Parts: sequence; C-alpha cells; structure tokens
Amino acid sequence: MNITRESITVAHDRIRSYVHRTPVLTSTSINEIAGCSIFFKCENFQKVGAFKARGAMNASLKLSKEQLAKGIATHSSGNHAQALARAGKILGVKSYIVMPRTAPEIKKRGVRGYGGEIFECEPTLESREATLAEVVKRTGATEIHPFNNYDVIEGQATCAKELLEEAGPLDVVVGPVGGGGLLSGTALAIKYFSPTTEVVAGEPSGSDDAFRSMKSGKIEPAQSQTIADGLLTTLGDKTFPVIYEHVKEIITVSDEEIIAAMRLIWERLKIIVEPSCAVPLAAVLKDKSKFSGKHVGIILSGGNVDLEKVGKFFEGK
Amino acid sequence: MNITRESITVAHDRIRSYVHRTPVLTSTSINEIAGCSIFFKCENFQKVGAFKARGAMNASLKLSKEQLAKGIATHSSGNHAQALARAGKILGVKSYIVMPRTAPEIKKRGVRGYGGEIFECEPTLESREATLAEVVKRTGATEIHPFNNYDVIEGQATCAKELLEEAGPLDVVVGPVGGGGLLSGTALAIKYFSPTTEVVAGEPSGSDDAFRSMKSGKIEPAQSQTIADGLLTTLGDKTFPVIYEHVKEIITVSDEEIIAAMRLIWERLKIIVEPSCAVPLAAVLKDKSKFSGKHVGIILSGGNVDLEKVGKFFEGK
Repeated sequence: MNITRESITVAHDRIRSYVHRTPVLTSTSINEIAGCSIFFKCENFQKVGAFKARGAMNASLKLSKEQLAKGIATHSSGNHAQALARAGKILGVKSYIVMPRTAPEIKKRGVRGYGGEIFECEPTLESREATLAEVVKRTGATEIHPFNNYDVIEGQATCAKELLEEAGPLDVVVGPVGGGGLLSGTALAIKYFSPTTEVVAGEPSGSDDAFRSMKSGKIEPAQSQTIADGLLTTLGDKTFPVIYEHVKEIITVSDEEIIAAMRLIWERLKIIVEPSCAVPLAAVLKDKSKFSGKHVGIILSGGNVDLEKVGKFFEGK
Repeated sequence: MNITRESITVAHDRIRSYVHRTPVLTSTSINEIAGCSIFFKCENFQKVGAFKARGAMNASLKLSKEQLAKGIATHSSGNHAQALARAGKILGVKSYIVMPRTAPEIKKRGVRGYGGEIFECEPTLESREATLAEVVKRTGATEIHPFNNYDVIEGQATCAKELLEEAGPLDVVVGPVGGGGLLSGTALAIKYFSPTTEVVAGEPSGSDDAFRSMKSGKIEPAQSQTIADGLLTTLGDKTFPVIYEHVKEIITVSDEEIIAAMRLIWERLKIIVEPSCAVPLAAVLKDKSKFSGKHVGIILSGGNVDLEKVGKFFEGK
C-alpha cells in the first residue's frame, strides 16, 4: 500500500476536472437536535450521485493506454457500476459491468446511459465474481474493484480532504462502512491532513461485519438484513488493515434509526440521500454524549434511491 | 405601488442578515432533457424552506416600533405562516397565525416551533378572513397578507435579483403563480435589473385562475383541483396589475406533468422540492420549443412536503 499525503494530493488534481467539488452544508435545527456542530459533505450531489465517481475515475485514469484499450470491468450492485461506466465514457473506452439481476432499475438505467455493457448475474458474491472473471478473460479488460483496490481507495480519500478544506478543523469525521473503500480512504486522508481528528464509522446493525471484524481482528462475514443496501458488502483485505489501524470506533444503528436520520436529512437539509447515506448521522444521534459540543464532519455518501420505495420508509412514522 | 429598483435594493440589504442567499444549481442531464440551459434558484434551501421568508421578513422589518409591539398576524395554509412566525421570533414580538385545520402537520409544527400562536379555522377563504379579522380586532396586531401586500412583494423580488446576480444574463425567468406575490416581485425585479429578460409563469391547470385572468383582463376566481397545494389561491388586486403588465405568458400544466417534473428534480438535482415548486420546470418541459437553446432561470419556490404522501406521488410511475 503506497497511498501517501502526496499521492492523495496528486489524485485530487488528477480527478478534479471530472468530478464535482461538492458543497458542505450545515443545519441549525439538526445541530440543535444533535447537540454538536455538523458539517455535511454532500456527495449525493456528486457525479453519478455518489462518492464512487472519485475512486472509479482515479483508478481508470491511472491505467496505461494499453490497458484502457481493452476496457474496464467491475461487478457492482449500484453506484460503482455507474461510476465506472461514466469513467469509460469519459475516456472513450468500453466498460463491462456485472450487476445482480435484482439491482435497482434506476442504477441499471444509469449504467446504460453511460454506454456501459451490463452482464446480469445472480445476486450472490460467487455469481458476481464468476461472471466477472469470465468477462475479463474474454475481453482482456482490467478489473476495477468497487473498494478493494488501492487506486479506488486513494480516489475516495479526496472526499475527506475537501471536507477538511471546507469545514476547517474537525474533532471527528464520521462515514459509513460497507466494503470500506470510502472509510479507508477517509482514514488515510485524515491521518495525513488532520492527524488529531478522530475517524468513526456508522454501520447498520443488520450488517455489522465491520463492527465484529474490529473486535476479532480479522475479516468477519457479512449478513444482509438492512435497508441500507449500499452497505451490505464485507471488508476487503486491502481496506480492513487500514480501518483496523486508523478508525477509532464503529457505531451500529438499527434500520429504524437509519430511517429517522434519513428523514431528518430530507426534511431539514431538503436534500435527497439514500438510506446508506443516513447511517453516519444515525450513529451520531445514537451516541450523542460522544459528540457533544464537537465539530463533526459527516460524509453523505450518495443520493440514489428508488423513489417508489420512499413512501414505505416514511409511512406511519 | 412604489416598488422601485432602489427600494428592492434597500429591501435586499434590509433582509440580508435574516435570510439565506440560496444557491443556484444546474444539471447537465436536465439540460439535455429540456434542450436549454436551466439555472435553478433553490429557495427550498431558504429559511423555513421557502421564499416566503423574504417577504415576511421585509414587511415585518418595515413596521414601526408601535406596530410591532402589538404583534403581527396573518392567515396562511403553509409557508407564509412559518415565515411570519419566524419573523416574530426574530423581532421578539407576538405572531398570530390563522391556519385552516386541514393544513399539513409539518407546517403547524413549524409555526409552533417559532412561537407562533395558531388559530384554526375552516378551510375556506371566508373562514380564514373572518377569523383573522377577529384576531386583529382583539389584539391590535398588524396583518401581513401572504401576497397582496407591497412590502411582501418587494421582499419576494429579492429572489430574482439574486438569481440574476448568480446566473448571469438570462433570456427568460420562469416562476410559479398562486396568489402572485413571488411572480409580481419577480416581474418587478426583472423589469428593473434585466429589462430584456422575459418573465413566464407556470400554473397548475386544475387551478388556472391566473391563466384565465390574463385572458380576461380581470381577476378570475380559482378552482382547487391540484396537488400543487401552494398554488390554490387567487391573484390579489395588488399582484394582478403587475402580472398583467409584466408577465409575458402563463403556461398551464397537469398534475401528471407536475409529478414528472418533481421526480426529475428529486432524482437529478437530489433536492427536495414540494409539488408547487416543480410547476415552472413542468411548464418548460411542456413547451420545449419556446425555451430551446435559451438561458432559463427557474425559481424553485419551496421544499416543504409531507413525506408520508411522497410514496403516493411516485407509485407506479
């Protein structure tokens, strides 16, 4: 792993013209409820609607001409799929995207919109990996993994770098954790650019493999019982060591708590975030004493949600 | 009517420290769909979640100490209610808000949160006016009408002024029309600050009184069949003459078209807008040839929506 202060700065320059510098929002009423000063880094406004645009762009831009000529490939149920298809379109190369047939239609539409070629598979990790291996073998494309890839991690690190630049000194930064690409990138950016800031993660209790991995010291398997469908994946062998070393704590939250936090963001910030994206705020609200009076950066990871499902989230709440 | 270029500038300075200078957003994908360059002025991010904060604040700040001592009062089903209660809180005076008992709970909560005293009435204009007259008689408070008030209109004009400052030259500005406070203020700001820009309005076809009033040359009564519940009111004798003189055209749109536009804003801009707020974009999409290739400013008027109802809007679409 050779992600350094310098390499994150170079990555930031590398992707700058291809991604948004997303705004940082604050809300007086959320601060009152939370009892701390929260700075929301709005990656829901990012290209493709999620921070994934950063890592996919950085990793693609680092490939050689020869590699690019054969295309880029990945398996992803969602935002990384669109991000990689978009990178392919920008760079003028083919993108091959393996997606579970159960992936949200909005995300499949997004991939097709960027000219990505979709290969549907069963919604299991085995089927995803087998299908991708076949595609890669046939095309010679380079696989760019959604999170277990140092160039992707380096790209995601640029998000926390911007947050620090916008919000000023922060006591703690809270992000979500699924596969750990964003969280490990965030932890590295904080380590290099603001070493006294703590990094904490929120995780759905229905998929608390990162929480358990931090306890056991090894990668634990994931369950998959949460509405935060972007956070179902297990940590990888490249993300886990970074997280184990640099993340102070993982706070788990229930689906009820995630929905309440998502509602607060929709109603008070007037922005659309997906359930996974509300997990860090849910963590802060669950453990208020820990954050009391502090300056807290929260990374809002994405805003891609099937609006048909939204009514169900809020019904009777 | 003595709203001038100078008075709008003074009003802007008067309210500046009490309201947000809201951002102007753009979306490549919406521009592609619409066939023009749209600059969205995001008053859904405004204090109280709507442009109404501007007019209520301006009108309240223009009252004398003696007037303020007796409080401020209004009838409103929604955003103006919260805006006036907030102005009362900021100025340390009582606010008396007459609201139909059917008004959304989120808006009543907002009023109470600002310390406003709510008087419930029947959901008819007669009941609203009678209840307000009684409250004003008893308390001596000054009525600040939601739209048929020159100081309110002058305050709403500051929104289009900011849009011009942010977006640069615009060929046309499109706003919604209900009672006409925002639209008449917008028309006056454009007249003074960018006289070559056209002003167009979108109106729900289920409540097309402004459209019919423009044809007949007199104020026509409203119907009330639309999901755009912020636009049910009829033009007033102070707003209509300004609109009649300065607004080029009113385009009517169906509830279906409003929901489709609202969905586009939620999905592409990742921001929460209320149905009324989507009416101008619906108008642009309905009449694309009229806006083709132009620089179009759209005022997104507010973001206060009952999330319980949202699922129904999008179900099966």
